[in-house]
Amino acid sequence: MSAKDSSDKSAIEQDAQADRTTSSHRTHFPEPSVALLQKALDGQWPEAREEVRNKITEDMLPALDIDRTAYRDKVLRDLNTLAEGGFAKAAFKEEDSGTGETGKALTAFEMLGMVDLSTMVKSGVQWGLWGGAVSNLGGKEIRQKYLPGTIDLSIVGCFAMTEIGGGSDVQNLTTEATFDPETQEFIINSPTPAAQKAYIGGAGRDAQYAAVFAQLITKGPDDAEAESNGVHCFVVQIRDDEGNDLPGVTTGDHGPKGGLPGVDNGTIIFDHVRIPKSNLLNRFGDVEADGTYTSPIESSGKRFFTTLGALIRGRVSVGAASGAAARLALSIGTQYALRRRQFEHPSTSDAVLLLDYREHQRRLMPRIAQAYAYGIAQNAIISELHAFEANPDSYDELERRQLETHAAGIKATVSGWANDTVNEMRLACGGAGYMAENRLTGIRADLDVFSTFEGDNVVLTQLVAKEQLTAYANEFSDMDPVHLVGTVVGTVGDMVQERVRATTLWQKIVDSVTDRENTDLLERGHQLRLLTDREEHLVETAAQRMRRADSNDKISAFDTFNGAQDHILAVGRAHMDLYVFDRFIEVIDKIQEEDPATAEVLDALLDLYFLDIVDKNKGWFLEHNRLTTERTKAATAAYNRLCRSLSYYAADLIEAFGIPDLLTDVPMLREAGVDPEDGEQPAGFKA
Amino acid sequence: MSAKDSSDKSAIEQDAQADRTTSSHRTHFPEPSVALLQKALDGQWPEAREEVRNKITEDMLPALDIDRTAYRDKVLRDLNTLAEGGFAKAAFKEEDSGTGETGKALTAFEMLGMVDLSTMVKSGVQWGLWGGAVSNLGGKEIRQKYLPGTIDLSIVGCFAMTEIGGGSDVQNLTTEATFDPETQEFIINSPTPAAQKAYIGGAGRDAQYAAVFAQLITKGPDDAEAESNGVHCFVVQIRDDEGNDLPGVTTGDHGPKGGLPGVDNGTIIFDHVRIPKSNLLNRFGDVEADGTYTSPIESSGKRFFTTLGALIRGRVSVGAASGAAARLALSIGTQYALRRRQFEHPSTSDAVLLLDYREHQRRLMPRIAQAYAYGIAQNAIISELHAFEANPDSYDELERRQLETHAAGIKATVSGWANDTVNEMRLACGGAGYMAENRLTGIRADLDVFSTFEGDNVVLTQLVAKEQLTAYANEFSDMDPVHLVGTVVGTVGDMVQERVRATTLWQKIVDSVTDRENTDLLERGHQLRLLTDREEHLVETAAQRMRRADSNDKISAFDTFNGAQDHILAVGRAHMDLYVFDRFIEVIDKIQEEDPATAEVLDALLDLYFLDIVDKNKGWFLEHNRLTTERTKAATAAYNRLCRSLSYYAADLIEAFGIPDLLTDVPMLREAGVDPEDGEQPAGFKA
Repeated sequence: MSAKDSSDKSAIEQDAQADRTTSSHRTHFPEPSVALLQKALDGQWPEAREEVRNKITEDMLPALDIDRTAYRDKVLRDLNTLAEGGFAKAAFKEEDSGTGETGKALTAFEMLGMVDLSTMVKSGVQWGLWGGAVSNLGGKEIRQKYLPGTIDLSIVGCFAMTEIGGGSDVQNLTTEATFDPETQEFIINSPTPAAQKAYIGGAGRDAQYAAVFAQLITKGPDDAEAESNGVHCFVVQIRDDEGNDLPGVTTGDHGPKGGLPGVDNGTIIFDHVRIPKSNLLNRFGDVEADGTYTSPIESSGKRFFTTLGALIRGRVSVGAASGAAARLALSIGTQYALRRRQFEHPSTSDAVLLLDYREHQRRLMPRIAQAYAYGIAQNAIISELHAFEANPDSYDELERRQLETHAAGIKATVSGWANDTVNEMRLACGGAGYMAENRLTGIRADLDVFSTFEGDNVVLTQLVAKEQLTAYANEFSDMDPVHLVGTVVGTVGDMVQERVRATTLWQKIVDSVTDRENTDLLERGHQLRLLTDREEHLVETAAQRMRRADSNDKISAFDTFNGAQDHILAVGRAHMDLYVFDRFIEVIDKIQEEDPATAEVLDALLDLYFLDIVDKNKGWFLEHNRLTTERTKAATAAYNRLCRSLSYYAADLIEAFGIPDLLTDVPMLREAGVDPEDGEQPAGFKA
Repeated sequence: MSAKDSSDKSAIEQDAQADRTTSSHRTHFPEPSVALLQKALDGQWPEAREEVRNKITEDMLPALDIDRTAYRDKVLRDLNTLAEGGFAKAAFKEEDSGTGETGKALTAFEMLGMVDLSTMVKSGVQWGLWGGAVSNLGGKEIRQKYLPGTIDLSIVGCFAMTEIGGGSDVQNLTTEATFDPETQEFIINSPTPAAQKAYIGGAGRDAQYAAVFAQLITKGPDDAEAESNGVHCFVVQIRDDEGNDLPGVTTGDHGPKGGLPGVDNGTIIFDHVRIPKSNLLNRFGDVEADGTYTSPIESSGKRFFTTLGALIRGRVSVGAASGAAARLALSIGTQYALRRRQFEHPSTSDAVLLLDYREHQRRLMPRIAQAYAYGIAQNAIISELHAFEANPDSYDELERRQLETHAAGIKATVSGWANDTVNEMRLACGGAGYMAENRLTGIRADLDVFSTFEGDNVVLTQLVAKEQLTAYANEFSDMDPVHLVGTVVGTVGDMVQERVRATTLWQKIVDSVTDRENTDLLERGHQLRLLTDREEHLVETAAQRMRRADSNDKISAFDTFNGAQDHILAVGRAHMDLYVFDRFIEVIDKIQEEDPATAEVLDALLDLYFLDIVDKNKGWFLEHNRLTTERTKAATAAYNRLCRSLSYYAADLIEAFGIPDLLTDVPMLREAGVDPEDGEQPAGFKA
């Protein structure tokens, strides 16, 4: 480029942008097809995405300047609009007035993550959590009673699981549901302030019903000592038609939060509230008229985790929506970087485009690669959950638990990544990024809690690790250090290899590696080996530490677990890194058949995803002699090169996110900050 | 501990907490003195901290549930209260109706960061930026005209530097101030939309005056072509007494932002606004009646950076206040971790205290160590700026630029760290952390932009690096890649060594290392050597890359700089890591004389600060053969051990932050989440 007269700056702008998208810079890869890139990201239900895209109207976007009450009204209105359009039907079985399309439903929920996260969460509470609890835990009668109204929003429910005392430790929650054989009722009671249901979406204002999780207490026919049969779920009406608390129910409103202004989170305390016996959602446990407890699942622990397992849609949705919100932020941040200039360029009268700075490429491009990787892995989970729900009997116990583990792992991985990504986009857009009208701060504020609800990310990552360490040998549980130490199996390491060798594709790739010592880090088979080997080694060495402890000495067992907690969390992360990598390979393999050029760009994204893992774990790979220092230095150089070459495809890569223009149409992408001569004035400017 | 009856849980709670603070666990270090720990953190003006602590009233805390207009009113009210109490006097010279106590003023501003960041920023704009511009750039007459009213808040000003087009590139801003010899006036004008002043605190509503930065354009006496003499600052009245825009001035209100609801950020456009010649702040440049430009500083670049240098208080304040806000969040998060329990403990009826989990120790303790390290380094900057302003002539050019460099580096380091820390505290407090009443989300939202304003953190880190690479050899500048490439000096590496060897203390420590190969990572001298060596190596190799480029080929020079940008930023970070480390050593050395026991705990905090640097840069140390894999593995083990042993002193360590109870008195530290039997109900609960 030569120096140009400033009078035709607008033309230069166009030239410069054209350069990045069509000209000679783009020689790193063959031209990809945006449609095929989008296909790679859209997953199994592209029509569900398209349907939501077409439904979005401007008034569904986040409102900037209204108070909490008005925001709650706005979100409730949008839920009604969605309900009228039949949005929720796919999430329910045909026998429950739905259409039974789990995958489609989850994909549509995910798309709401781009529109307004308050609306997404409120929908998730109504149709995913409350509706899901009734649908997945209830018998036919109660489903028919509540689900049609739930679907059309004439019944508004909430999901009263979390207690202020117990928090993540759901298995030990303390709300009581004591069966009274005299009246054939359950008495729902909060025995202490710690039993108070807290942070419950919908409990603050709108919910009339609650799916209440409580210890089911029976005395038994021989008037034996009352005992808990574990946590069960009960339908409890909490408000009357006028919205007043029913007798014995006290709700509270949490008021302002860090974000999600349209969601009315609140508290509930029960003071001996009586409900009919039939309000127990009795799929996994019931009480006979005389008070005898019965269940198809003998072990109380297994029953609890089977109950939770029936509710994993919530986790899947939270991961998916956080990914969608992060892609929205990435699209906004990348569009800004493709238009905004800062500091003089030595050879043109224009300043340097943000995306031409190496540091900016390093901020954006690995995150775009991760957006593809995590989006693809999230789609895989949705597809698997859909297949499972369509035909649960074809899944054995191990397969079911693997699905639940990966749903937990993806939720933690994607929501954590999403928060980091949105934050980085805010920073990368400078002062403009801090203005609410440019959306990034609102997304950040709303998304924050996605790392906490539906399972704290640390707890979930630990859960993933535990399943690897025990090779799914003992009961699925959120966290039980002593049990973990006692049941670490002897041959865990082999499992990773076995899994990797299970499919022909993996076998093909692994076999392609002939000379392990001298293999390039950009060779797929070598990457797969490194990630597999890392997980194996972490699992094996963590297992050794556990085995050394005496599991009969509970304190020693706890101390051993606790002393290795950082190691255990590393196992969970390594497992998910490999899981995501594997799903990405599978999608590229399919695209490869359709269009090698697009597959090549996806290959480069997967390389960057891999190199970012190497970069973040460089110390580990060196400490464990998995990579030489020459190799890690080469990896850094390759990382920078890929950031640069992929940056020339940035516009295509974000276009393939399939985000409607309406959602990224923010002032900073139009005004004088990116269009110095003719940019429009920002909102609030009086001229 | 044995299993205990749940009826005396409250006693157990007390026991458990007593265990952590006074019992046998605390054998890792001798008992520290909280007063001396606080002394280490309070810096040179403890009385300024105490004064603010005593002034804080409950109504000065962030308001949770009021709209933007009411919040702005609240902040303005608090500023008036502060002004009435003479808060701002210390920031101004005696001849300007102040008391001339820079250090005291900056320390007091810092403390506002714990109270309400909106109030801190609004105060900073009024007394630091607007007042500072008039005070540091203006002549006697204009200072006497505006400063008394500025101090007592009868005059409200703003600081109109940033433009929407130029952003960080202040040197090339495009607002024009053209001198008209006919009328002896300057004509202030925004030639394009890009020249619009943007994000200006105070411009949205309250400011009546603006310190406007503009290119000073003169034609000269011989009616030569108009030319710019560089950026200068002018006092421009923008609103009349009723708050209406004056003729030619158009202000805009940015409305809602990601945080800082009490600060009225806005835009200003000037349409040929005429101001008297005397409104030029003429310390570094003036215009004679005939239009001849004069300046005591010949080089336009040097003049610009001297002007900016006179304004570094803003940067110092932003770093300091962000550190204060992070300490507040750390205190809240740590208090929660010392009370909140999650999941059963194998040997007691109580659940496990959050702070007893290794992962939680790893989240909190290194950040507490950094709070000490950064707090101490921030104090050092304040002391140095105070000394400089008291006696500027005793500073040579190099010393002055080092001060400016470190002010920039500390701002980037501390504000970036503060955002990460507040975010981690939010996550570490789970659902409770997301409730606005518990303060963390509000601090996070307000603090976010501290990484952007007063210098984007990436730009500032680069500036620090540049000064190391050129050994302060060429003009101070924000960023000029080509100039940088052209002036990298030959012997930069030696500078770091020279600096380290400059003081007796350092010499003593370095000399204490006798056997470099076999030195423990917890030996201070070895730590100092490693950090010094890292900076040296990074500087030397970056300089080599720069030298390879042909500085006469501007495009090649830019490409070389840009291709090494990640390396250059690493230089800046390494320099600041060492700078902070050095300041910490100095403080420990002083405390050592008073109380070796307290010094030992501070030593452990410095070790943890150091080990965290090793942990984050493990790949680098291994790649460059600075540490063996055995050594880095040992470092990880030592890191975990220190997190654990220091966790038993956590209550003392945060008490020494010296934060009034009023500021950390949030519901989640009182309610049932931490006190299951007797905890108070959260706000909004009706029972």
